[in-house]
Amino acid sequence: MAQRHPETALASDDVAAPPCIGSDSAGEVLSHYLHDQAGVFLRALAVTGQPDDDSETTLPLRRSARRIAAALHTYAPLTDPGWAEPFRTELGWLATTLSREHQHAARLARLLSALHRLASEEDSPHSYDRLAPPPPGPQPVRARGNETTPGSGPLAVGAARAGALLDRQLRLARTRAHSAALQAMGSSRFHAVADAVAVLVSDVPLSAAAAAPAAHTLPALTEQAHARLTDAVGALPLARAAHPYTADALRAALGAEDAAERQDAPWHRVRSLLRISRYACEIHPYGDVDAEPAGRLSAAARTLEQHREAAEASAAVASAARTPRIAPATAYALGVLHTDQRQEVEAARFAFARLWQRPASGA
Amino acid sequence: MAQRHPETALASDDVAAPPCIGSDSAGEVLSHYLHDQAGVFLRALAVTGQPDDDSETTLPLRRSARRIAAALHTYAPLTDPGWAEPFRTELGWLATTLSREHQHAARLARLLSALHRLASEEDSPHSYDRLAPPPPGPQPVRARGNETTPGSGPLAVGAARAGALLDRQLRLARTRAHSAALQAMGSSRFHAVADAVAVLVSDVPLSAAAAAPAAHTLPALTEQAHARLTDAVGALPLARAAHPYTADALRAALGAEDAAERQDAPWHRVRSLLRISRYACEIHPYGDVDAEPAGRLSAAARTLEQHREAAEASAAVASAARTPRIAPATAYALGVLHTDQRQEVEAARFAFARLWQRPASGA
Repeated sequence: MAQRHPETALASDDVAAPPCIGSDSAGEVLSHYLHDQAGVFLRALAVTGQPDDDSETTLPLRRSARRIAAALHTYAPLTDPGWAEPFRTELGWLATTLSREHQHAARLARLLSALHRLASEEDSPHSYDRLAPPPPGPQPVRARGNETTPGSGPLAVGAARAGALLDRQLRLARTRAHSAALQAMGSSRFHAVADAVAVLVSDVPLSAAAAAPAAHTLPALTEQAHARLTDAVGALPLARAAHPYTADALRAALGAEDAAERQDAPWHRVRSLLRISRYACEIHPYGDVDAEPAGRLSAAARTLEQHREAAEASAAVASAARTPRIAPATAYALGVLHTDQRQEVEAARFAFARLWQRPASGA
Repeated sequence: MAQRHPETALASDDVAAPPCIGSDSAGEVLSHYLHDQAGVFLRALAVTGQPDDDSETTLPLRRSARRIAAALHTYAPLTDPGWAEPFRTELGWLATTLSREHQHAARLARLLSALHRLASEEDSPHSYDRLAPPPPGPQPVRARGNETTPGSGPLAVGAARAGALLDRQLRLARTRAHSAALQAMGSSRFHAVADAVAVLVSDVPLSAAAAAPAAHTLPALTEQAHARLTDAVGALPLARAAHPYTADALRAALGAEDAAERQDAPWHRVRSLLRISRYACEIHPYGDVDAEPAGRLSAAARTLEQHREAAEASAAVASAARTPRIAPATAYALGVLHTDQRQEVEAARFAFARLWQRPASGA
């Protein structure tokens, strides 16, 4: 992800200066942020026109749509709810629709790379850095299904067949997501969202509460967002997840079909709240030393992004295993790959738990 | 394992007093130990007669055979090599033949228990204590194949079928090992070993070097055993294994059939050398504070015992997956189970690496 860290964005010279909370009203600070994000959205729209084969071209659209929606959520009392709530829903639809193609591509790359790793013997000295942030830009498909066969035994054949099956299924899903994104961007629904974003450049429909000084209002609302995050984190089994090799994430591997989903849901919720808190930091950086520094929020968000990707990849493998008439060797390889991805789910929880439990120290 | 820790054995009143190294010759101290072990062996033989269905009845025979063989190895310069070397080979054959039945039973229990865990959703609060020593005595079979089906989807059916397949194959292997043990104990080869052990009670064929004072000779030989262990540990990728979730042990999961074996071999070698060092501590406890205390050797040995059991269990699963005409759902469950056990292999390496890298502190 090439996404700029909030603290970098606020510190560097080439972006808008941080809002001056001292004298402005809360509405002015929020409007300033929404103007900026709307500008990013509209410039990306002018450049992009329509998404081409590279799903990365819709990235600025998705990013600004998510930031606008998050700002309207965190600072909801400052805006007209009759306008903001349906607008947020539409922004969410847009971001989700445009992100699917990229997600299928990334999932395929992740799974073929994992199959390659599982089928090869040589050491990968960096595999324990798996939770480090990935390099910027789209991730290349490192291994193709038919390259995962260094041996020639039944296991290697199974790995190659599993790779080919996943390749077929996820490429199809990607193509469908691409068509759906094209269709969405040509729809009147999309144009209505773009028009609503254009309005933000000139005029944000504020509520009466927005007239209050930013210095009083914004910290309280940001803290509320953070409190929701803290509550959600408190519901996670962190003390347990901080022990390595609990095999907890494997628990669902042969259980009921929705068991993994139920187990993962509280972690996904924290991921989503982390994103909202991070975006809130862009509008109103935490000044309180007791609060979470933005850098730590970003690092925590990355671990749970890995968690989501591994969980969704393992679900895709389980789904592929339900394909009728697959060979036992293929099914075996899919079972191995599924469990490997569930182990990555567990590794991400471990990394998050250790990060969160470490005492906060400066930004 | 009900096995008494060396330091306990040396401290408690109900066993032979520790050899008085101060004035005795090296040969006298070694003979004293071999007399004791031969006594254990012969008493167990008198009680056992023939192994019955409980493979645990041969445990004292296996234990004393391994200790005698280890002592003859570590203190080889003190005995007649023409006698000791073939005797050690025969003791190894005996211990291995008698242990197979128990190993198959333990493997089946481990795998059915793992299947149960993988198919159930509820938390097991102690699963991160998996590397703690198991309770003494034979481990009960906690879950039967047909009890691993809390759901009714294809995954649960696959888990139940995989359990039934493993149950059938490992019970057959256990029965065969039982027959082989019975046959071995009725053989002239076994009687020759028993006769050779009986000789130890009265007379150990010592070399000229055995006449040297124990205080000079034994520490040097014990240190040599420990140096071999240290060298073997030095060849392990410990710095890397001390990071959790490297996925290194999964690397072989879809590779060449002997890839796992090659990857595990250096760890198995350390396990074997750890046992030899532990037994050497029973004859000549390390007095040097810089050396490994016996308690730490025992703990390290337990982690690598878990490593061996998980590695052999995963190999049994891979072997079951090669059964012709299994259903894809069964193969999928076996793939999941195989990877789960490889994760336990990795967890054991992690535990060993952390234990070994921790600075030694008293016994």
